Amino acid sequence: MTKEYNVAILGATGAVGRRMIEQLAQSTIPVKSVKLLASSRSAGTVLKFRDQELTVEETTPESFDGIDLVLSSAGGGVSKKFLPEAVKRGAVCVDNTSAFRMDEDVPLVVPEVNPEALKNHHGIIANPNCSTIQMVMALEPVRRKFGLKQIIVSTYQAASGAGQAAIEELKRETQDYLDGKDMQNGAKILPTKGDKKHYPLAFNLLPQIDVLEDNGYSHEEWKMIHETKKIMLNDMNSQDIKVTATCVRVPVPIAHGESVYFTVEDEAATAQDIMNAIADFPGVVLQDDIKNQIYPQPITAEGSRDTFVGRIRPDYENKGAFNMWVVADNLLKGAAWNTVENAEYLVKMNLV
Amino acid sequence: MTKEYNVAILGATGAVGRRMIEQLAQSTIPVKSVKLLASSRSAGTVLKFRDQELTVEETTPESFDGIDLVLSSAGGGVSKKFLPEAVKRGAVCVDNTSAFRMDEDVPLVVPEVNPEALKNHHGIIANPNCSTIQMVMALEPVRRKFGLKQIIVSTYQAASGAGQAAIEELKRETQDYLDGKDMQNGAKILPTKGDKKHYPLAFNLLPQIDVLEDNGYSHEEWKMIHETKKIMLNDMNSQDIKVTATCVRVPVPIAHGESVYFTVEDEAATAQDIMNAIADFPGVVLQDDIKNQIYPQPITAEGSRDTFVGRIRPDYENKGAFNMWVVADNLLKGAAWNTVENAEYLVKMNLV
Repeated sequence: MTKEYNVAILGATGAVGRRMIEQLAQSTIPVKSVKLLASSRSAGTVLKFRDQELTVEETTPESFDGIDLVLSSAGGGVSKKFLPEAVKRGAVCVDNTSAFRMDEDVPLVVPEVNPEALKNHHGIIANPNCSTIQMVMALEPVRRKFGLKQIIVSTYQAASGAGQAAIEELKRETQDYLDGKDMQNGAKILPTKGDKKHYPLAFNLLPQIDVLEDNGYSHEEWKMIHETKKIMLNDMNSQDIKVTATCVRVPVPIAHGESVYFTVEDEAATAQDIMNAIADFPGVVLQDDIKNQIYPQPITAEGSRDTFVGRIRPDYENKGAFNMWVVADNLLKGAAWNTVENAEYLVKMNLV
Repeated sequence: MTKEYNVAILGATGAVGRRMIEQLAQSTIPVKSVKLLASSRSAGTVLKFRDQELTVEETTPESFDGIDLVLSSAGGGVSKKFLPEAVKRGAVCVDNTSAFRMDEDVPLVVPEVNPEALKNHHGIIANPNCSTIQMVMALEPVRRKFGLKQIIVSTYQAASGAGQAAIEELKRETQDYLDGKDMQNGAKILPTKGDKKHYPLAFNLLPQIDVLEDNGYSHEEWKMIHETKKIMLNDMNSQDIKVTATCVRVPVPIAHGESVYFTVEDEAATAQDIMNAIADFPGVVLQDDIKNQIYPQPITAEGSRDTFVGRIRPDYENKGAFNMWVVADNLLKGAAWNTVENAEYLVKMNLV
């Protein structure tokens, strides 16, 4: 008989949590039961899993009794508090927060890229940051075939990376702007909730995602650099691939864009070779037909599990160097889907 | 007695043309008379120069009789047709279109960067593309002090780069989206008027500015590469500085953002050295105080003649390599102000 799983979703009412419920409903995981967990504030909310109406419960350590699999997206503090409780009770957790990503004994996994890392889990698997996931999806086929030397990325990140409330803030400010009202009073969340100052995102660009650190980089940029190394090279500080990043929030609700410049070891590689490698990689869709103006856009990527890549072209002045443009739904491949997909792999690989 | 100038503004009713009138009104140029010129469609429009009400006239070759100075922003075709007529009649023209930028005997000038090039004019001076201007403003102080080897830029360009109608299109689509209506039917201009397909920019990102060429680059990207070389090195094909670009339109009405990665010859240069050089350069404002979340943003740059630079930080894995973030009002320093400023320099240097 096929094993069936009791699944808990922690942070079920958030933008990512709601999508985890949907993605789990569409997944290949044999689900026995689903428990929706959140803070006391959100407890009592009724949400659907397939045809079942489920009432969200307040999270306690005992919530995890009898749970096999936890999908978590309730914030780093909540994960740090509750996931060890879940593991103690025998559950395996896929965590979408940054709480455990850099822990040496926690695998950081994009299933298409480094599934083998799942085998080393001790109860917790970390889902990478949204902006990292779509970049490694686009670059892993390049790394495997041609070797990667350097990555220079500039991001165009959607408001939803900061949660549902940030989407609402963007829409409210946008309407205020169109109505000729002052936007400045509306900003309470962005660029990042924990910081002192807040700026409008509507019709604006904010070159700050997460807090700015003393080294000059934002924490988001730091994450892109070190998570990429951990996923691709299994060493967050490796310099075998050099990575630098500039992360910018743009007035888009869903789906991140990324302008990625990269250099490969095999200098004979052509843009067509790069395109072919990318087109063959699972979960990646090549949208690169400039004659017909086909290239990735947030409004066409929204709602898809795939990562879209286009505008691939050589830097004609540097051998083995290329530019490309990558778009993915940050709430799906960048969060909910990659989390559920990790859980699917755990099930398939008999690791849960 | 100070010489006074009869000035014609060609394309006076457009987003840039209207700002040329304002910038001329605030300039040091001794103005004797102003003539506003446009197509027959816009003739009859009444606009103010200082306290004078002026009626826009339809452009004919004879419009330029008696004119000393022409400021032009009516589109490449109009410039090609009329500027030679103006030159024939003794006028000196500063042209904000791409019509003459790559002509060998036409100086391409950002006054703070390469004012000496003005001396070689034969009646026409070209104003560079908006995205090029703000980048060379930020990088010229770096080039002069530390030498520049490579530039990799990703742009975040405002709708107004495609004219006032593109701003209106963005606002209309945005309201449709907020009202839950279909945006797809609204797009008639962007990504670029001359191309076959049009896509909404509202809450979206368009990785196409101007037409896409067979080499894989958009014409905007091509302009950034070759204009930068012409301005900094006086050779549009020089490889003494290697340049590559990815240009993306973002849902912002006014002011372009640019994520610029660059490498310098002097590998001992620190981020602080780069900041000091940039802060000292005329027309550039350093906004780089991460402790207080101070960095350039479109909504704070809009309406200013200056170029704002911040988020300057080293690429810790590559010596002599840095990231920075640059914002400027594309209609002012990127267009109207740089045009008027070129005219101011022509007057100061006795070249008109």
